[in-house]
Amino acid sequence: MARRLFLVCAWLLTGCTATLAADAPADSITLVYRDLSRRLIAEGLSEYRAYALLAELAREAPLRLSGSPGAERAVSLTAAMMKRLGLERVRVESVLVPRWERGPVEEAVVLGDGGWQELSLSVCALGGSVGTDAQGVTGPVIEVKSLQEVKSLGEKARGAVVFYNRPMDPTLLNTFAGYGGAVDQRSGGAIEAARAGAAGVLVRSVTLARDDAPHTGSMSYTDSVRKIPALAISTLDADSLSQILKSEREVRVRMRLSARTLPDVLSGNVLGEIVGIERPDEIVVVGGHLDAWDKGHGAHDNGAGCMQAIEALDLLKRVGFSPKRTIRAVMFMNEENGLRGGRAYASAPTRASERHVAAIEADRGGFAPRGLSVEADSATVLRWARWSPLFADLGAGRIFRGGSGVDISPLVSLGVPGIGLVVDDHRYFDYHHSENDTIDAVHPRELEMGAIVISLLAAILADE
Amino acid sequence: MARRLFLVCAWLLTGCTATLAADAPADSITLVYRDLSRRLIAEGLSEYRAYALLAELAREAPLRLSGSPGAERAVSLTAAMMKRLGLERVRVESVLVPRWERGPVEEAVVLGDGGWQELSLSVCALGGSVGTDAQGVTGPVIEVKSLQEVKSLGEKARGAVVFYNRPMDPTLLNTFAGYGGAVDQRSGGAIEAARAGAAGVLVRSVTLARDDAPHTGSMSYTDSVRKIPALAISTLDADSLSQILKSEREVRVRMRLSARTLPDVLSGNVLGEIVGIERPDEIVVVGGHLDAWDKGHGAHDNGAGCMQAIEALDLLKRVGFSPKRTIRAVMFMNEENGLRGGRAYASAPTRASERHVAAIEADRGGFAPRGLSVEADSATVLRWARWSPLFADLGAGRIFRGGSGVDISPLVSLGVPGIGLVVDDHRYFDYHHSENDTIDAVHPRELEMGAIVISLLAAILADE
Repeated sequence: MARRLFLVCAWLLTGCTATLAADAPADSITLVYRDLSRRLIAEGLSEYRAYALLAELAREAPLRLSGSPGAERAVSLTAAMMKRLGLERVRVESVLVPRWERGPVEEAVVLGDGGWQELSLSVCALGGSVGTDAQGVTGPVIEVKSLQEVKSLGEKARGAVVFYNRPMDPTLLNTFAGYGGAVDQRSGGAIEAARAGAAGVLVRSVTLARDDAPHTGSMSYTDSVRKIPALAISTLDADSLSQILKSEREVRVRMRLSARTLPDVLSGNVLGEIVGIERPDEIVVVGGHLDAWDKGHGAHDNGAGCMQAIEALDLLKRVGFSPKRTIRAVMFMNEENGLRGGRAYASAPTRASERHVAAIEADRGGFAPRGLSVEADSATVLRWARWSPLFADLGAGRIFRGGSGVDISPLVSLGVPGIGLVVDDHRYFDYHHSENDTIDAVHPRELEMGAIVISLLAAILADE
Repeated sequence: MARRLFLVCAWLLTGCTATLAADAPADSITLVYRDLSRRLIAEGLSEYRAYALLAELAREAPLRLSGSPGAERAVSLTAAMMKRLGLERVRVESVLVPRWERGPVEEAVVLGDGGWQELSLSVCALGGSVGTDAQGVTGPVIEVKSLQEVKSLGEKARGAVVFYNRPMDPTLLNTFAGYGGAVDQRSGGAIEAARAGAAGVLVRSVTLARDDAPHTGSMSYTDSVRKIPALAISTLDADSLSQILKSEREVRVRMRLSARTLPDVLSGNVLGEIVGIERPDEIVVVGGHLDAWDKGHGAHDNGAGCMQAIEALDLLKRVGFSPKRTIRAVMFMNEENGLRGGRAYASAPTRASERHVAAIEADRGGFAPRGLSVEADSATVLRWARWSPLFADLGAGRIFRGGSGVDISPLVSLGVPGIGLVVDDHRYFDYHHSENDTIDAVHPRELEMGAIVISLLAAILADE
């Protein structure tokens, strides 16, 4: 791109501004907050502090699955971080959380004639899976594309390793829709296979990436059927295994896992605030979940959302904004495998003396913001959609009715309007729940843009 | 992100669709092309073929500065690629291009007492710079923040190495604006420093990244002043040098470059088409520039735009779309240091028998599309802006008046409406003109999304 483009750019920018100005209704909210928006942008983009916070979290508490020592370090760290930044009333609200441990062994090997190991597959235990004994479980592999297909396997399934291999549909524009269309294999696959008499399950990683990294995530059991072990397999090895199955009469796999579930342990949600100057008991929550799967460092999922919440409050402090209502950052514990933190927060006795006016969550990765998904009655959605021109400046002008966030869903159930930060999600599932989800996968500027959107939104909700 | 989010997602999706439907005017163009859009999305996202083409280009012709052997390989390769994909009337239109060579030596060293080398800086020659002899040029470093400041240096500048160190402003939302605000140091810095009597210039890399990679790019001389050598310095080393200057009385730097300008050589623009079934002589151009700076592989700048152009035509073929007018992919040569290809295309004798109805260029990196910047009269901009709901499905609903593209600027000067693909540009200048601009920096899905937008736009323009 040559020098001449910059002349062109000047015109482009003029065009942009003109378009926005033309779009903007003569709305007092828009006019009042445009100045705040400018200050937040100037402050946020000058340093990208959300990224520095995320780097600190990833360094000090990279592994922080609920109940683990890392999760407790993350609780202490974020409480200390909030205090250091001058947030008020910083505290930890206790939550009893499940504790599942992966342990050192997670393997699936294709066995050759005579039971010799022929090929080691790239796998990891699904979150919540039972373990096996040292011998593991061995069975012939049966590839299926759906839970429905397992039901029709009949006697064949008995003692088998059921291999769920339906890929995410890449042709859906919204990658969350692609994820939603494939993840039933992971969440419900072990139950269905166990009902059919299977010995274990292998589940194709729910990702659009074709690489060697297995992607973990929650799976469930039900009391009425046997608990069988469950492994995620990388997409490349899922494709390889599928190829082998096409050419071999019978392919036997041995699965071994050291995973286990331990007794619940005490953990907590971390809270910190900018106390409102007029209505301190009216609350705008800005949240993310502090726990993360124990692959990668939970940088996008959801260190990003947590650090954006803290940075959003700090940004408001740095530009000297004093909200009328209280803006509260909440690091929810245990979103990934229990939602205990979200439930505990919504039902805590101290909530009785508070009125929540809105809850915001960013849990779709730390990418460039595109819009706001509002989970509320139509009148509220329409009212808030009027802010679209203001957020369009930040690339997030699409305000529509939709889901908000998992951690805040218990609040939403109580009638609190929820808002999810919608981001550019093309890359998200490349990283999600895998060793790829490290700080390198997060772009400082994209992350900060999300924090700026959240801070502006929180400010408006706290004052209107 | 836990399983529960998918219930939420379903609602989110429903919300999205509803919003779009509500936004869409009952416009026949929108209704007719929505089906085409769906087919292009399904076809494009099933394989991400633009990325495969880009990988081929990066592998076979990674270095392709105008006039280089790599550029000629790129010409042959893309012509062969077009033929292989069944494009029609594939041909190369000759263009005489400048040839500048970096050569093996480009260094700047901070000299200690007694002339010993103390510190080697991370630098590279700016495109077009003259070289030095083996001794190089040595002078005291004077840091400045603007061309204006150089004018006020007076006698101090004589024999000095002028160090331009004004960073890109990160607080501007549009990174192109930040680039435009800093790049005068690179493009005009040597002229201004030579006027003041300087021996050479060091220019802070025009990027928001803080790393060790120097970013090259075009710079200019004027006949009336001496040509002095010019190096880009990485942002980290620019900061280090600035620190050293704060603590030392005098800092001397020696610059050595083997850069040189050779005689012009013959190269070419590569053209391939889907010939229109009703008006074959009416043309919609879809272009990118095939030449690239000789650092990195020009993956984003502008292999991406070239391969998106070819993929856009191939996508239309794959979904069975036969345009009324001709859609022509053009790989322009020599955008980076001359614009000879763009000018030659617009003025070629064969253009006289053609009527160009529009020209599209994607030269802002292969990122997720956000909109279309239309360089045309107001009536045209307003007419095309009605397609916004259609492109909003693809994330590119923002259609506004603005600059289009450098290669197509000679066409635009002749009255042809130009359209630039606007993308998410937060990351672009991290890679731009540096060794960072490799295939790894491009995301297959984001790249394909751009190709889909271009193919849909080209189809509409070819038929309306």
